[in-house]
Amino acid sequence: MYSFKELTSIFTEKFTTTTHFPDVPNSLYEPCNYFLSLGGKRIRPVMCLMGNELFGDIQEDAFDAAIAVELFHNFSLIHDDIMDAAPLRRSMPTVHKKYNENTAILSGDVMLIKCYDYINKIRSSYIHRALHLFNKTAREVCEGQQLDMDFEQKENVQLEEYIHMISLKTSVLIAASLELGAILGGAGEGNCKNIYEFGRNLGIAFQIQDDYLDAFGNPEKFGKDVGGDIKQNKKTFLLIHALDVATNEQRNELKNLMQTNPPDKVEKIVSIFKACNVDEWANKLKEKYVALAYTHLEKIAVVSTRKKPLMELTDFLFQREF
Amino acid sequence: MYSFKELTSIFTEKFTTTTHFPDVPNSLYEPCNYFLSLGGKRIRPVMCLMGNELFGDIQEDAFDAAIAVELFHNFSLIHDDIMDAAPLRRSMPTVHKKYNENTAILSGDVMLIKCYDYINKIRSSYIHRALHLFNKTAREVCEGQQLDMDFEQKENVQLEEYIHMISLKTSVLIAASLELGAILGGAGEGNCKNIYEFGRNLGIAFQIQDDYLDAFGNPEKFGKDVGGDIKQNKKTFLLIHALDVATNEQRNELKNLMQTNPPDKVEKIVSIFKACNVDEWANKLKEKYVALAYTHLEKIAVVSTRKKPLMELTDFLFQREF
Repeated sequence: MYSFKELTSIFTEKFTTTTHFPDVPNSLYEPCNYFLSLGGKRIRPVMCLMGNELFGDIQEDAFDAAIAVELFHNFSLIHDDIMDAAPLRRSMPTVHKKYNENTAILSGDVMLIKCYDYINKIRSSYIHRALHLFNKTAREVCEGQQLDMDFEQKENVQLEEYIHMISLKTSVLIAASLELGAILGGAGEGNCKNIYEFGRNLGIAFQIQDDYLDAFGNPEKFGKDVGGDIKQNKKTFLLIHALDVATNEQRNELKNLMQTNPPDKVEKIVSIFKACNVDEWANKLKEKYVALAYTHLEKIAVVSTRKKPLMELTDFLFQREF
Repeated sequence: MYSFKELTSIFTEKFTTTTHFPDVPNSLYEPCNYFLSLGGKRIRPVMCLMGNELFGDIQEDAFDAAIAVELFHNFSLIHDDIMDAAPLRRSMPTVHKKYNENTAILSGDVMLIKCYDYINKIRSSYIHRALHLFNKTAREVCEGQQLDMDFEQKENVQLEEYIHMISLKTSVLIAASLELGAILGGAGEGNCKNIYEFGRNLGIAFQIQDDYLDAFGNPEKFGKDVGGDIKQNKKTFLLIHALDVATNEQRNELKNLMQTNPPDKVEKIVSIFKACNVDEWANKLKEKYVALAYTHLEKIAVVSTRKKPLMELTDFLFQREF
């Protein structure tokens, strides 16, 4: 069996040396290749391979499903970047900034369509199940993005609603990547359900960590603009909980900072977060979801040695030092 | 066998009474339902059913393929309307105008994904071929839209390039709709190729007619803003040919009218078109493609009575009075 790291390098090699798009029209496909060249952690496709290897040797079409998942993720980023008016992605210009918005719409579309070419390489015996799961997930990711945008306009977002949105926007794709691999590995319904739930809970934990790092992370190691969510008044696990538990005075200060955008906004909001113990709370909530994920992993009916790479990955994801 | 009209009413009944999208989030799916409610001629899905009936009784999954094709067409219109900054579609506000651009992007995405749910209902024995054709066509439609946008920035577009663009942007979907039906009807490779080419040539002829009607059509019967293409300086069969055959004086006047946008721009450009015999030329070119389409229809190896509805449809499409 391969470790997460080994699979990442195997997948990345395959993904980056495959020609996914034709040459012409260059104005359509060059932006696709540009965006893919920005790289990424390739977590989702590797999850697909790991879900597959949980049940036996990696099947050829698990790579196709993995590529489909990675292309889908990139498609969703291209379109999300337009919607969020984001200028940068992985420290480089987003597609709509480097080219223009129309190109970003259309290149995203064609990348989404390309996913289904890879799905089409799945063995006939599994294609209906795989396509069903892929479509359901793709739709849910769109729903998550829509809810995220809706929440921007909403004064009060409850923690439960936020978890539902995050589950759709990010977790289901991780969950489905694992299950796609499992399906192609011949897993039965029960195992598929557990691997999916393992991934879904892992995804929620991952987002809590991401929100946490935005406020409390080490800027050099985080690799993103620390406080980016705070500057944008983004509803995060932290902000939602802070607004929930803050004193009236703290709540008013938070709202005031969000409206007035002073230069020291990030520091001030982070200190309110700390005063409200948001950091501890977030760590506990993350642990809860990691534990839930482990419970589902344990339930999967394969010999425990096959679960080792997924265990190691979970440890790696949640014990990183930032 | 059913006539085009009968199939249109059967399909429309089925399409409009089927719930294609979930209820929530309403902000994502209501725009999808709104756009579908604007109607349309449903030519492409009916082509799919006709392509299917050419080879025997209509199969259940031909309806699924037909719905996929119609949803794809609507997805492409939602996104094209953003790119073209079009305020109206079928005399009603476009999705990005009625809601906003982000909603239009995302609702289009989810409509594209929904296509593949219907494709997934195709029998296992045909799904790989159907998915391959659907993906190839979807990609080509995007390529066509990209070329169309590229041509807007280009001073000189050759007739051949324009035909290639039109073929991708509009004809291949008509061609593929017919072929999808044929595949599901058990058609062999040769018949599939001919039905595809029948549709492709028909689609080109149809676009020539559309361009023609924009300049020379009866506004009341045409149902669109006559001269719309002219007002926007849109490259059409007519303009490309006019620039090609005009005298230097006429060419300069054309270019001057396009730059200065006087109130009588449409009348003046139409009269140059007439002086250049563009109308006659367009009619002849259209006839050439209709004849080519017929040639391919003739080559299809089924008893000629089965071809009758497609023959009648072709007559109907190209002998309409406007």
